[in-house]
Amino acid sequence: MERIIMAHGSGGRLSHQLVQDLFQKYLGNDYLNQMNDATILPGSTKLALTTDSFVVNPIFFRGGDIGKLAVCGTINDLSVTGARPRYLSLAVILEEGFLIEDLERIVQSIAETSQKAGVPIVCGDTKVVERGSADKIFINTTGVGFLQEHLVGPEYIQPGDYLLISGTIGDHGIAILADREGLEFGTPVVSDCAPLNHLIESFYGPGVRCMRDPTRGGVGTTLNEIARQAKVSIVLEEESLPLNPGVEGACGMLGLDPLYLANEGKVLAVVAPEAVEEVLAKMKAHPLGEQAAVIGRIGEKDPGLVLLKTPLGGKRVVGMLEGEHLPRIC
Amino acid sequence: MERIIMAHGSGGRLSHQLVQDLFQKYLGNDYLNQMNDATILPGSTKLALTTDSFVVNPIFFRGGDIGKLAVCGTINDLSVTGARPRYLSLAVILEEGFLIEDLERIVQSIAETSQKAGVPIVCGDTKVVERGSADKIFINTTGVGFLQEHLVGPEYIQPGDYLLISGTIGDHGIAILADREGLEFGTPVVSDCAPLNHLIESFYGPGVRCMRDPTRGGVGTTLNEIARQAKVSIVLEEESLPLNPGVEGACGMLGLDPLYLANEGKVLAVVAPEAVEEVLAKMKAHPLGEQAAVIGRIGEKDPGLVLLKTPLGGKRVVGMLEGEHLPRIC
Repeated sequence: MERIIMAHGSGGRLSHQLVQDLFQKYLGNDYLNQMNDATILPGSTKLALTTDSFVVNPIFFRGGDIGKLAVCGTINDLSVTGARPRYLSLAVILEEGFLIEDLERIVQSIAETSQKAGVPIVCGDTKVVERGSADKIFINTTGVGFLQEHLVGPEYIQPGDYLLISGTIGDHGIAILADREGLEFGTPVVSDCAPLNHLIESFYGPGVRCMRDPTRGGVGTTLNEIARQAKVSIVLEEESLPLNPGVEGACGMLGLDPLYLANEGKVLAVVAPEAVEEVLAKMKAHPLGEQAAVIGRIGEKDPGLVLLKTPLGGKRVVGMLEGEHLPRIC
Repeated sequence: MERIIMAHGSGGRLSHQLVQDLFQKYLGNDYLNQMNDATILPGSTKLALTTDSFVVNPIFFRGGDIGKLAVCGTINDLSVTGARPRYLSLAVILEEGFLIEDLERIVQSIAETSQKAGVPIVCGDTKVVERGSADKIFINTTGVGFLQEHLVGPEYIQPGDYLLISGTIGDHGIAILADREGLEFGTPVVSDCAPLNHLIESFYGPGVRCMRDPTRGGVGTTLNEIARQAKVSIVLEEESLPLNPGVEGACGMLGLDPLYLANEGKVLAVVAPEAVEEVLAKMKAHPLGEQAAVIGRIGEKDPGLVLLKTPLGGKRVVGMLEGEHLPRIC
């Protein structure tokens, strides 16, 4: 009999398969089938809705904690869909014996992040399960946003558009790995976990065609999703990918590909040629976008493929994440 | 150091204390402080938002499963707030090794319940944790509803109003207990788990002042919440409480009070005297309300107190649920 394996939660190929074969099969409808970071709902005020459960291990890590992550993750999913995040729900599952002191730290961090982003928690739920029936604390946040007038999405992508990222890649993945395994690297790596709504607000406009936040599965998997949905090829320039020295070192040492490491405070943006200079400048002007860069370009209409151009001029196909090398990254 | 205990998840006194001392302390705002089943949000179309995580054990029980429960619970929270449920999100946390066959049964049940209620699942999320880090499957559903023109809430309750319930009490609690402990009673008990939006739609109108669904903590705890928020006393007639013979038998045998057993398909309604006959008749005309009854009355303005009148004329105070006798009931 088939059983759930860790790779079903990787955000990579097996996650997509599970969603398709099970959830979409039985629950599929025009909303669910949008398969974007958040779902756009019709009405006089167009709403966006998104949900995420967080099971990150460890719950406190360099650069954040499960509470901060839960607030940022959902705010970011709404923001990249072209919505202004307005309301969050918060549901926690606690393991019997969990320290109330730790819970308090997490709730304080949720409060701080929610205030900083300007998105209030408006409803909540608390459940408790017996010792050994959950690992410390799991958090679900669901977010409601109001769609902006200018729309973005893979359907607006055109050949020749540029691909931008708001900063270095892989920081969250390496930070979690380091804390979990007790690793120390020459240059310390801190999670990039941050609410992106203000950064995105600063460069949002007509030239922006599509945005995504490359979390689980990393930039590699996220670009594959975009390429398939937009039915285009994407050509990445390996040399232009911004990398922190610590992440570069850790990847070399551990044999990890930064393209598959999770990010929790980065936005990928596909931008029209005429707007690319302005968007890049605005990104760089924001504290969360100082290391923004153009990292690639949209190729011809093509059955969705992501290619990486190496400094020596070679090209290799970048697939979706296979298997699972870093479970419980978010 | 203080730790989380099972009673923090009971829905009773300790749950309320945890919410007050931690979540409201740091996150409190005008929305969160409404402390209703769903939160009402301002705007041209008034929204209602509610979230719930489900950790019920066992995941399949007589009368339902964790999937059906997750859909009903959130639909019901929106409905009793006076909103028409419109959209649901669905987030699952799976334990490594969970049978995909069982997951399929649960997703089918979610699909069936969502179709029956006419409320689609519009976005989702899947996480997987290692074997032993969760117990099989946890589900979060968050719901968005559109508020109806006629408003309900504890602030509309008047002395002299009547208290109605849409049917028998305690069925869900006893069904879960029986399945979990392998108990058999003379009269089998089945969970009342059902989406209440159509039932509520059938009797909703100006005479309806306030509604609640008495889930965790049961009718006793829910009425205490209402009494405190409305600052009134509530007088319950013990004789008029509808009870299935199986629940009555089980409670007698096990020393349980049906007033603290969970319900997952019942609505408590406070109704104005001039409307009570019509509302009761409409409830009884709906398949989910056949055993509806008037079970009490709102007393004078009073610091929120719930009193139970026994058949012999005695009166006792009904408090909130203390401790936790049935963990993971939902």
